[in-house]
Amino acid sequence: MIVGIDIGGTTSKLGLVHNGSVIARARISTTGHADDHAFADALAKATRDLVVFGGHPPIQAVGIGAPNANQLTGIIEMAPNLPWKHDVPLARMMSDRCGVPAVLGNDANAAALGEWRYGAGQGIDDLLVVTLGTGVGSGFIVSGRLVLGSAGNAGELGHLTIIPNGRPCTCQRKGCLEAYVSIRGMRKTYADLAGTGEREGILAREGVLPIAEAARTGDAIALRTFHDTVDLLAIGLANAVCATGPRRIVLFGGLARNGELLMAPLRDRFQEALLNIYKGRVDLTVSALPDDDAALLGAAALTTL
Amino acid sequence: MIVGIDIGGTTSKLGLVHNGSVIARARISTTGHADDHAFADALAKATRDLVVFGGHPPIQAVGIGAPNANQLTGIIEMAPNLPWKHDVPLARMMSDRCGVPAVLGNDANAAALGEWRYGAGQGIDDLLVVTLGTGVGSGFIVSGRLVLGSAGNAGELGHLTIIPNGRPCTCQRKGCLEAYVSIRGMRKTYADLAGTGEREGILAREGVLPIAEAARTGDAIALRTFHDTVDLLAIGLANAVCATGPRRIVLFGGLARNGELLMAPLRDRFQEALLNIYKGRVDLTVSALPDDDAALLGAAALTTL
Repeated sequence: MIVGIDIGGTTSKLGLVHNGSVIARARISTTGHADDHAFADALAKATRDLVVFGGHPPIQAVGIGAPNANQLTGIIEMAPNLPWKHDVPLARMMSDRCGVPAVLGNDANAAALGEWRYGAGQGIDDLLVVTLGTGVGSGFIVSGRLVLGSAGNAGELGHLTIIPNGRPCTCQRKGCLEAYVSIRGMRKTYADLAGTGEREGILAREGVLPIAEAARTGDAIALRTFHDTVDLLAIGLANAVCATGPRRIVLFGGLARNGELLMAPLRDRFQEALLNIYKGRVDLTVSALPDDDAALLGAAALTTL
Repeated sequence: MIVGIDIGGTTSKLGLVHNGSVIARARISTTGHADDHAFADALAKATRDLVVFGGHPPIQAVGIGAPNANQLTGIIEMAPNLPWKHDVPLARMMSDRCGVPAVLGNDANAAALGEWRYGAGQGIDDLLVVTLGTGVGSGFIVSGRLVLGSAGNAGELGHLTIIPNGRPCTCQRKGCLEAYVSIRGMRKTYADLAGTGEREGILAREGVLPIAEAARTGDAIALRTFHDTVDLLAIGLANAVCATGPRRIVLFGGLARNGELLMAPLRDRFQEALLNIYKGRVDLTVSALPDDDAALLGAAALTTL
């Protein structure tokens, strides 16, 4: 019995995990807390409430996936998409508050673990899982092991420079993949193509859904936005293949939930973008887990690595 | 007692390896043979001559590093920089001719093994070795293991797309890192900047040396060529860091032998190009092995993987 937690830019989700299933859920806001200590207090309370009010037996551990989390140190390091710009030792903060061991890992690594153990990556020992959400994250599995890197922070595919001196990224650098192919990046692309502000017209609504809906009704700018996004995503994925040569890539997150609108052109462009020796040897698929289960199951799985 | 062989685009080098040292050397031309069988005949003869004429005891194995070699199959696959455009099962061809086991691996993976076991990567379990020669190759070591990838062909950093729709590459794609930062790429950059042909002026001489010599005497075009090359190489290396998070990067090959002309600006640009969470956590160094020993020692080490 483990609580898996997925810390997002706006919402943090909790799942009580038993035998590879999420049996109860909760969520709290990530923003609006006085500081990181107040956030940890709220998160620990939500964890206790999830277990106690559900009448469940005590938990053994808490597993937490978060952006910019370093699994070797248990610290969230200078996360551009979270409210706290300093280092937050969330593993220790949660362990102190909950009285059980807490393991912190990168959110994309957690999702990769979830997909590898329970989802679309089962049985694949060379796997890449890419999270396409507000930002872009990734987890590499190589020869049956999650790649942590020497400093615990491997797998930042979103910050591959895809266009030198390109669009500014939240990381203070320029031309990162994430600046184009994330939900935020697609909104920027649409606004640039439409010549409007990033909250005008269809973009008055949040997320990528308004662009997807417009594309489905034949809106030329929305279709062009998907086209340009697919183009750079295909190149970014092909670049990742050159590094570790995975057998499969699993896509996950809000952008990946656009079905064939994204996947039909992406499959073609990805095969074109691959170096010849990889063509036909890497499948591209979408998360097979419902809702946010990859993130929650993966966060829980961090405690058993 | 093992013969290590490094197959290059123009020359193939052989080294008799004993206790981690190259104790005798030979070389043959890679080009000018009637076909791949004639080349294998010449290579097997050179292998026998190296052992027999040196009065050495019989060898136990042959290890071969080659571009586009697939370690899982023992086949050189459609290598754009070699004379044979079809698949060449060189491991079996050499094993048949030499009467001992022959292991074939990617040349950059072999160099990575050599640097990791005997050179500038000793003791570093998360390592990236990048070959900067006629082309650009790479070998990733993750958690103390060489990354082969699911199809045996991981580690093709030279074919990361660094400029979408950029300069044509020998791989038939566009904008690959190798099209800019290899010796061939630098010659093209110099010719483009000078507005001359690729064999005119100082480029009448082969290799990167004429450009380096011109840069050392203050030639503005040569200096600009180094500047532009360093810029893209820094981005390419920073991209690789985002994948596997190595502790160290070792550079190797003809371009890396330009000392501080390359390394002084590269160290600065590389730190600038790194995502903030990696800054100061990845060293950049040059091969510590003499001449081509990384390639030969690494090729021999393939037989003991």
